Amino acid sequence: MDNKMPNFLTRRAFLTPERTVVCFQEQSLTFKELYDRSYQTAGQLQKLGVKNGQFTAVLLKNHLDTIVILFALQLLGTKTVILNCRLTAAELLWQLQDSQASVLIVEDCFADLKQQFTEQLPTLISVTKTMLFAQEQVQPKLLEEVSLDEICTIMYTSGTTGKPKGVIQTYGNHWWSAVGSALNLGLTDQDCWLCTVPLFHISGFSILMRSVIYGMPIVLHEKFSEQKTIRDIKDKRVTIMSVVGTMLSRIVDTLEDERLPKEFRCMLLGGGPAPLPLLKTCVEKQIPVFQTYGMTETSSQIVTLSPEYSLTKLGSAGKPLFPSEIRIERIDGATAQPGEAGEIVVKGPNVTSGYLNREDATAEKIRQGWLYTGDVGYLDEEGFLFVLDRRSDLIISGGENIYPAEIEAVLLAHPDILEAGVTAVDDKDWGQVPAAFIVTRNGRDIPVDELQQFCRNRLAKYKIPKFFYLIDRLPRNAAKKLLRRTLRDWVNEGRFR
Amino acid sequence: MDNKMPNFLTRRAFLTPERTVVCFQEQSLTFKELYDRSYQTAGQLQKLGVKNGQFTAVLLKNHLDTIVILFALQLLGTKTVILNCRLTAAELLWQLQDSQASVLIVEDCFADLKQQFTEQLPTLISVTKTMLFAQEQVQPKLLEEVSLDEICTIMYTSGTTGKPKGVIQTYGNHWWSAVGSALNLGLTDQDCWLCTVPLFHISGFSILMRSVIYGMPIVLHEKFSEQKTIRDIKDKRVTIMSVVGTMLSRIVDTLEDERLPKEFRCMLLGGGPAPLPLLKTCVEKQIPVFQTYGMTETSSQIVTLSPEYSLTKLGSAGKPLFPSEIRIERIDGATAQPGEAGEIVVKGPNVTSGYLNREDATAEKIRQGWLYTGDVGYLDEEGFLFVLDRRSDLIISGGENIYPAEIEAVLLAHPDILEAGVTAVDDKDWGQVPAAFIVTRNGRDIPVDELQQFCRNRLAKYKIPKFFYLIDRLPRNAAKKLLRRTLRDWVNEGRFR
Repeated sequence: MDNKMPNFLTRRAFLTPERTVVCFQEQSLTFKELYDRSYQTAGQLQKLGVKNGQFTAVLLKNHLDTIVILFALQLLGTKTVILNCRLTAAELLWQLQDSQASVLIVEDCFADLKQQFTEQLPTLISVTKTMLFAQEQVQPKLLEEVSLDEICTIMYTSGTTGKPKGVIQTYGNHWWSAVGSALNLGLTDQDCWLCTVPLFHISGFSILMRSVIYGMPIVLHEKFSEQKTIRDIKDKRVTIMSVVGTMLSRIVDTLEDERLPKEFRCMLLGGGPAPLPLLKTCVEKQIPVFQTYGMTETSSQIVTLSPEYSLTKLGSAGKPLFPSEIRIERIDGATAQPGEAGEIVVKGPNVTSGYLNREDATAEKIRQGWLYTGDVGYLDEEGFLFVLDRRSDLIISGGENIYPAEIEAVLLAHPDILEAGVTAVDDKDWGQVPAAFIVTRNGRDIPVDELQQFCRNRLAKYKIPKFFYLIDRLPRNAAKKLLRRTLRDWVNEGRFR
Repeated sequence: MDNKMPNFLTRRAFLTPERTVVCFQEQSLTFKELYDRSYQTAGQLQKLGVKNGQFTAVLLKNHLDTIVILFALQLLGTKTVILNCRLTAAELLWQLQDSQASVLIVEDCFADLKQQFTEQLPTLISVTKTMLFAQEQVQPKLLEEVSLDEICTIMYTSGTTGKPKGVIQTYGNHWWSAVGSALNLGLTDQDCWLCTVPLFHISGFSILMRSVIYGMPIVLHEKFSEQKTIRDIKDKRVTIMSVVGTMLSRIVDTLEDERLPKEFRCMLLGGGPAPLPLLKTCVEKQIPVFQTYGMTETSSQIVTLSPEYSLTKLGSAGKPLFPSEIRIERIDGATAQPGEAGEIVVKGPNVTSGYLNREDATAEKIRQGWLYTGDVGYLDEEGFLFVLDRRSDLIISGGENIYPAEIEAVLLAHPDILEAGVTAVDDKDWGQVPAAFIVTRNGRDIPVDELQQFCRNRLAKYKIPKFFYLIDRLPRNAAKKLLRRTLRDWVNEGRFR
């Protein structure tokens, strides 16, 4: 086979034109309507100067128009640099330069930013969404077949050090990710996936790709709201939803004694290790949680817990999707024994081939086809993955490894603690010691000695945080993932202590 | 990506060891048990001389042991020539020679055949199943990763002229076939596929591959029985079944006023155009029929009617599976207009790369990645495929094209006609004229003038059969597909008229 496939949206609109692809606010589109709108927009993009094979950047929020623009770019066969709306102007500028994007489309509210970029990058063609849609429409030259090896999207990720890197995601990466997920989670003509995470993150964008590959409707929210989530799960017959721990926690709290409809079959929980008390509460409330592990570099999930193990392997991220593989590597390069922690190393057709224009970083992170994730975890005797932490978040205290997620999980079991984040603080005796940042329920004040006592019953002495800080809100990224790096920055900047 | 994947069975047994893979008679196996048995058999095959990369032939009936042996061969990475149990010794001998198989495993009841082959092919290592299972078991050298481009199986198909050709089916062909099917039919953890068609046909073998790729149980029957089918659909919670028209017709007759359980969600109907009256009866009886079109060269389905069109496009085989493509080509090589009949030409990752050791036939049938199927059909305005007939079965009468399937469909609408087959008879005036072979319900005798009158009301004059033959049974292959070629042979041999 030549590794080519029909253009995904073109094919889907041909196969099931009348099915709904998306509901957003009070609007909805069928696949045929999405195709028609994307076709029209493709003509406008082409008029603007967007060309097959070049890089086009987008700075767009969750909206129906964003979906139209993203698929219009696929129809043209351009490579899309998907920018994160939360970044600063300087960060965005850097990514625009790094990717050498020739065209930029921004949300109207970012018109000022657009102005700045145009001044600094004179060759960049940049327009707001409204300007784009006002363009004359020419007949677009469509990419009828896509090569699975071609770049579809670029998403930047920040490492712990150095500049952000543009992760290359091919059509094949997205295709295999969607297929691997379907083989694991199943797929029915009743399915409907709720997307409250940003489309500019792989968590959101992958839902879009699944929609077109599966012929499945999605419900898109501008941003996460627990009330709206619960309402739409009921009213719009949502069956699957992607969440991170804090979102799930807020849903669970808001539900109180209510239950989700029995048609709701999968709460796909990513974004890092989840606290066990939350998982147990979900079991009690019959919320079907599927823990998963994935990242921008794996185009979404690569390891997911199968339904039959959701109870017996509580806290595990599961086993790799059918086409993917996983290994735990020790510091010395040997494969770890069952139960032994080490770096999580993955492989598969959904895994990136590397970073845009970054040969060194690519060579460092991808070796003989295996991606070195920088995450720490272990496989149990049966091959189930337990993710311990980001390697970069590891606290080393007196030579002992301490995983922040473990301490956070303990703290979250306290009835008055809503959120917890743990990071390292330098210590002259131990090298590092853990410090905990805590958000309490209803702003209740918990005395430090109560917190210490609570931990003493549940943690080895060296794992007990030396400092507890009560704060209003934890730093999280747009996908609601906890940013432990920011906690560490706060400590280093002397904002605490 | 390097186009490699974990060995399918190894991976599946790791992912979901405790799930059932197959029920056969009173026995059932989990994926783990199948893996263990296949592993053991792989050791015995290796001891016998089976090697990675070589061809091994099997002549086996539907049985649990057959599944074990087929997967044992995949574990070793050998290429399996799957022989048809219905062939004559001479035909089998020819296929053994053509494929240069070095080892042959036969069902015990074929011990005599084995003896014959050994005499004629002195280098062939051949054993019965019992002899194989009595071998000493050595530790097998397993193929841990399969390349999707590697040959998995060879199945011989007979063209209308010349010797049978060995169709190459790679691991990738089977993989993409299974994935394309899942994306179209959906996939749930309640699914169970009933296999009453031979495992030595692609219709049966593809169910086996789906089982392992999906982690889905199958129920295997030795051969088709309408009573047993209906019983097992109920008792074993079957949700999907593969049939051809005559099987479906017998199921429908046997059901009488009964209904299949509502969990039964898909009757996948292949093996040639189905008569409309049968399809209409199924609509009345709420049997969810999914018409499909496929062949050995496409590793099973390539075109299937999506659920939402099963009523409005009755009689259509549907649209191509997501990754595949279809075109109708006129005799002059141009692409046909909607509604215009021509040769069905297909492409996709499930389509064979060619015929074993037959460069000429490969070049003739596969041109620029497109397979010329030899079947005649048209696409309607919306792109739905309607299969008219095998091109080789076409009757040309006075310059008019007559499709046997059309006439058969008309005859099958007669309340006393159970089965019908139409072929060409040479005619001095018209070149060819149609002749009909008919099996009546309960052996009722239908006068020829009644049949003529019945056709006159429904068919153009030139399409009305000039001869009607009442017979006890139509010639069908092991997959119950009508053999019009045999009808023509009967006429040519002077057995009728």
